Amino acid sequence: MPRVRFYPTGEEVEAPLGRTLLQLAKEAGLVLPSTCGGDGICGRCRVVVRKGRVSAPPTTLLSRDEVQAGYVLACQTHPVEDLEVWVPEAQEALAQLDLDAQRFRALAQAGDTWARFPLQPLVTKVFLEIPPPTLGDNLADQERVYRELGKALAAVDLQMGLKVLTGLPQLLRESGWKATFTVGHRAATTEVIQVEPGDCTRHNLGVAVDVGTSTVVVHLVDLVSGRTLDAEACYNAQATYGAEVTRRMIYAQKEGVRPLQEAVVGDINRMIENVVARNGLHLRDVTAVMAAGNTAMLHFLLGLDPASIRKTPYVPVATQPPAVRAVEVGIHVNPRALLYCMPAIGGWVGGDITAGILATGLHRSRELSLLMDIGTNGEIVLGNKDWMVTCSTSAGPAFEGSGVRCGMRAAQGAVERVHITPSGHLLLEVIGGGLPRGLCGSGLVDAVAELYRMGYVDRTGRLRPEASPRIRGTHGLEEFLLVPKDRAAHGQDIVVTQADIENLLRAKAAIYAGAKILLGSFALRWEDLDRVWIAGGFGNYLDPDKAVTLGLLPDIPREKVQFVGNTAILGAKMGLLSKPAFEEASAIARKATYFDLITESRYYEEFMAAKFIPHTDVRAFSQQGARK
Amino acid sequence: MPRVRFYPTGEEVEAPLGRTLLQLAKEAGLVLPSTCGGDGICGRCRVVVRKGRVSAPPTTLLSRDEVQAGYVLACQTHPVEDLEVWVPEAQEALAQLDLDAQRFRALAQAGDTWARFPLQPLVTKVFLEIPPPTLGDNLADQERVYRELGKALAAVDLQMGLKVLTGLPQLLRESGWKATFTVGHRAATTEVIQVEPGDCTRHNLGVAVDVGTSTVVVHLVDLVSGRTLDAEACYNAQATYGAEVTRRMIYAQKEGVRPLQEAVVGDINRMIENVVARNGLHLRDVTAVMAAGNTAMLHFLLGLDPASIRKTPYVPVATQPPAVRAVEVGIHVNPRALLYCMPAIGGWVGGDITAGILATGLHRSRELSLLMDIGTNGEIVLGNKDWMVTCSTSAGPAFEGSGVRCGMRAAQGAVERVHITPSGHLLLEVIGGGLPRGLCGSGLVDAVAELYRMGYVDRTGRLRPEASPRIRGTHGLEEFLLVPKDRAAHGQDIVVTQADIENLLRAKAAIYAGAKILLGSFALRWEDLDRVWIAGGFGNYLDPDKAVTLGLLPDIPREKVQFVGNTAILGAKMGLLSKPAFEEASAIARKATYFDLITESRYYEEFMAAKFIPHTDVRAFSQQGARK
Repeated sequence: MPRVRFYPTGEEVEAPLGRTLLQLAKEAGLVLPSTCGGDGICGRCRVVVRKGRVSAPPTTLLSRDEVQAGYVLACQTHPVEDLEVWVPEAQEALAQLDLDAQRFRALAQAGDTWARFPLQPLVTKVFLEIPPPTLGDNLADQERVYRELGKALAAVDLQMGLKVLTGLPQLLRESGWKATFTVGHRAATTEVIQVEPGDCTRHNLGVAVDVGTSTVVVHLVDLVSGRTLDAEACYNAQATYGAEVTRRMIYAQKEGVRPLQEAVVGDINRMIENVVARNGLHLRDVTAVMAAGNTAMLHFLLGLDPASIRKTPYVPVATQPPAVRAVEVGIHVNPRALLYCMPAIGGWVGGDITAGILATGLHRSRELSLLMDIGTNGEIVLGNKDWMVTCSTSAGPAFEGSGVRCGMRAAQGAVERVHITPSGHLLLEVIGGGLPRGLCGSGLVDAVAELYRMGYVDRTGRLRPEASPRIRGTHGLEEFLLVPKDRAAHGQDIVVTQADIENLLRAKAAIYAGAKILLGSFALRWEDLDRVWIAGGFGNYLDPDKAVTLGLLPDIPREKVQFVGNTAILGAKMGLLSKPAFEEASAIARKATYFDLITESRYYEEFMAAKFIPHTDVRAFSQQGARK
Repeated sequence: MPRVRFYPTGEEVEAPLGRTLLQLAKEAGLVLPSTCGGDGICGRCRVVVRKGRVSAPPTTLLSRDEVQAGYVLACQTHPVEDLEVWVPEAQEALAQLDLDAQRFRALAQAGDTWARFPLQPLVTKVFLEIPPPTLGDNLADQERVYRELGKALAAVDLQMGLKVLTGLPQLLRESGWKATFTVGHRAATTEVIQVEPGDCTRHNLGVAVDVGTSTVVVHLVDLVSGRTLDAEACYNAQATYGAEVTRRMIYAQKEGVRPLQEAVVGDINRMIENVVARNGLHLRDVTAVMAAGNTAMLHFLLGLDPASIRKTPYVPVATQPPAVRAVEVGIHVNPRALLYCMPAIGGWVGGDITAGILATGLHRSRELSLLMDIGTNGEIVLGNKDWMVTCSTSAGPAFEGSGVRCGMRAAQGAVERVHITPSGHLLLEVIGGGLPRGLCGSGLVDAVAELYRMGYVDRTGRLRPEASPRIRGTHGLEEFLLVPKDRAAHGQDIVVTQADIENLLRAKAAIYAGAKILLGSFALRWEDLDRVWIAGGFGNYLDPDKAVTLGLLPDIPREKVQFVGNTAILGAKMGLLSKPAFEEASAIARKATYFDLITESRYYEEFMAAKFIPHTDVRAFSQQGARK
């Protein structure tokens, strides 16, 4: 069996028959950029074979010079004998970017549940061969286009702005009356937002954005096929103005909304440019943007003042903001592109939750369901097809790896799973393989659950230095050494601090208490639930057992619990790809009611009780009840 | 009986008991500015009493200094003894402007037939006292406004732009939830275009514009009461680019539409500023503009390329253009104001004709009717409530006093009626009294009809120098001296030239021939008509007898013929003031069909026959048949 050694790391792997260099590189802990998924189309996984023979089909993606210099497409290349393969430096940098894309993409593709709805994007392109005017059929250009579009779309209320109308007569005649009309759903009408000569229906892109308090995620969507092409995520640059929503609102009250709008629009523009360029596409083909996010975040995005959300009765400026041109808020895609927002339920339960309900189908189900969307805010939805009630808790950003000493986003180098063997040996899973750089949300959950299971922390969450030699420090400054510096990517210790544990426990307590109060208010118990969905962008998975260990959930039958990932972006894509889905989202937002935890006197009590591991009352957590 | 002498003219009149100085000034041939119609409100008719005692009530419109200097409001002042009254110079200049206003206003008020429709302007202001949000009623600001507006308007599809939405939360709270919402009809939705604190419903203005090829007319309308407040007219500055529509289209094809757009928008802006300032109002209170005009004129106004109208099958860019912000085309009123266009019937039959049908009610009548709108183009409508067919003829601007040696608009100093006594003595009526400056359309019609009646011109329209000493010149350069220079305002002879007569005969022949062909195509004769409406802005009246003398009309019973003035501006105001009227205009535009005279072989023949006075076939013109 030939062996392949990859440089610059020097990692060597065996190459069973049929494996490509791309697959082998992954085994060697290297993630190569690739957006086509190994189909030999994107040309991004190029590596240099320095030594040894390979088998690879001819490709137009490599120049003659490149081929002579040893370049191959890793995904199309099989080793014939032992190889030395170099990963070019630039590829490494790209890989870092792509990794996020791949992870979010995997998540996205798996959950492309919009298929429940017809593919009927909010903005579509329609190619028409229009019968030219004659004396017998002398309708004006605009009315002629409306007539033909009306037939094609069965849409009645068409409109067109002066800019489009001005260019119409020349375009129709020069194109021989064969043109592509980009039409967008707007208020109660359908707007012709762009006209292009000839058939351009193959190129129509949309962008879904999850504007999270801590993390902003962008998905690039092909509006023609409905496929997600690429994705990218970053921390929200608004963090400069405060880690939590309330702090940013206070900032905005003093300095105006503009700095916050510019920060997040900058993030969004950068990510859109990346995903579009990476796929060899054009910004002008992006005709629609759908934003989901909590209500304050969408206010910042639109430049609306969210001040009134902070004060009772927590009223936003708009829960169903109008579709506007993306460029009006500074998003630079097609200048005529429309920006939509997923409709919010209220001031503290935003369009991200509406998206989550839409994505899970909670609002259509007969089953009594609980949806917990865990982010910097933890929003909870309780209900079924007949009723829905929502509440919001302030969890803090711990679940997103923020505000945690060695925390990071769920990106390359993040520890995402932790297991401690009976002998105290640590087994870690690192996103993208290789040496770890920090801990993402799911890694932190795993770590703390394992620390508790091993008895390294007690029920109050306090580290017990006597229990493990890895625990160091005193007087509240204790920390658990997860990865010593010589095994970390950046040469620094990766630790879980006492404060990190407390942050996480506060976060889980806030969410658990919210759910408990919500259930109790309707005289329901955990066991009455038919289904529990856990949503959030903190990793690829959340281990339900660990959630029960920590007390984020009581010990309910595992088959009822499902981790559904980032439902905000999923629901946003559903709205973008299907007008009926977007309309259903509006209905959801109108139907769901808001339950105010702040005015609920028992909330604080429940919160305090839930700050223990798993809880002061262990009866509901039977799995843990056995332990002492 | 006291006598009043007015300066600077020195004209003296007797002052019967009860006459005001304003009335007396008019008798003396002076038209003073006045927009309130003599109610002592506008303060514009100020004159200086230099000598003699008057009786006048106290007024706040004159300062102490002015009163001491002898100023009075002419409309409130009665002579007690002989007076010497000075009209300040500035007043004379204003008067010139106001005169047009008054004339057009008189016309407008007389025909304010929109009362047939409910007063329901396209843009209205609604004052709402909105219940502030509570925990039990925590709808967002936008949705709360929609809820309340929905109740007030029974409108379902409301929309709001980001600009309005951004200012909403602060405005609502600072105004104590008492605000005025300006809502405009737009496509299939109702748009909130402006929000003001408190109750501002009393101030809402609209402007109707008749964009004629030769003349542009502006009416200022109070959208609250439905009253026409003021009016103004001017020649279309586009005339620089050609007297006729076709010439301007050719210009636009070479140089673009922009210069033509700027020319007419300049006219409109100037006139709107005048009427608004003159009435002590504010441009920001003008929230809606309605334009009527032939299709090419409205294309120029909107900046649309009318090239395709010139070529068969004469297709415009749009017959029902979208409502746009007035500022998008450069009209400077409220920056959020909407500009509407009366819907056109086709490339050569525009929204001015739709307006004419709406104003006359032809489309609702059982009577078989003919509407002739006489302007630079002469458009003809034949039909009743069941069917309507339209055609257009190119008459040239003679009826509007343009392209005529001593022609002018129907403004101060224009000869508007001409009568020649049996002894050859000329009796002239001059608009505004005083010395004449030229001839308007109706003056020219009268003059030529009288010249023919007296035998000064023959049936071919040729001047007969042997018939009158007032006819001078030879070889086609003959002219009739209407006013010798010593009796003209500008000290120059006012004449009717051979070319003027030919222009007028061509114009009337074009229109007559069009009507004849149209009737014939439906196997109808003149005597089948129940009603003939003559519309146009060429003066305050058109004498039906003169129209028959000339052969513009055959000799049909006079009671069937009605002169209805400028129906374009009338219909435009109806659309502006009543959404149902505007919707009815759309239905009219869709229902009426276009009859193409150009492809009609008999048209040229009919036109040639109609160039005679009254016609080659005199049988239909029995009144004239008696003459030899």
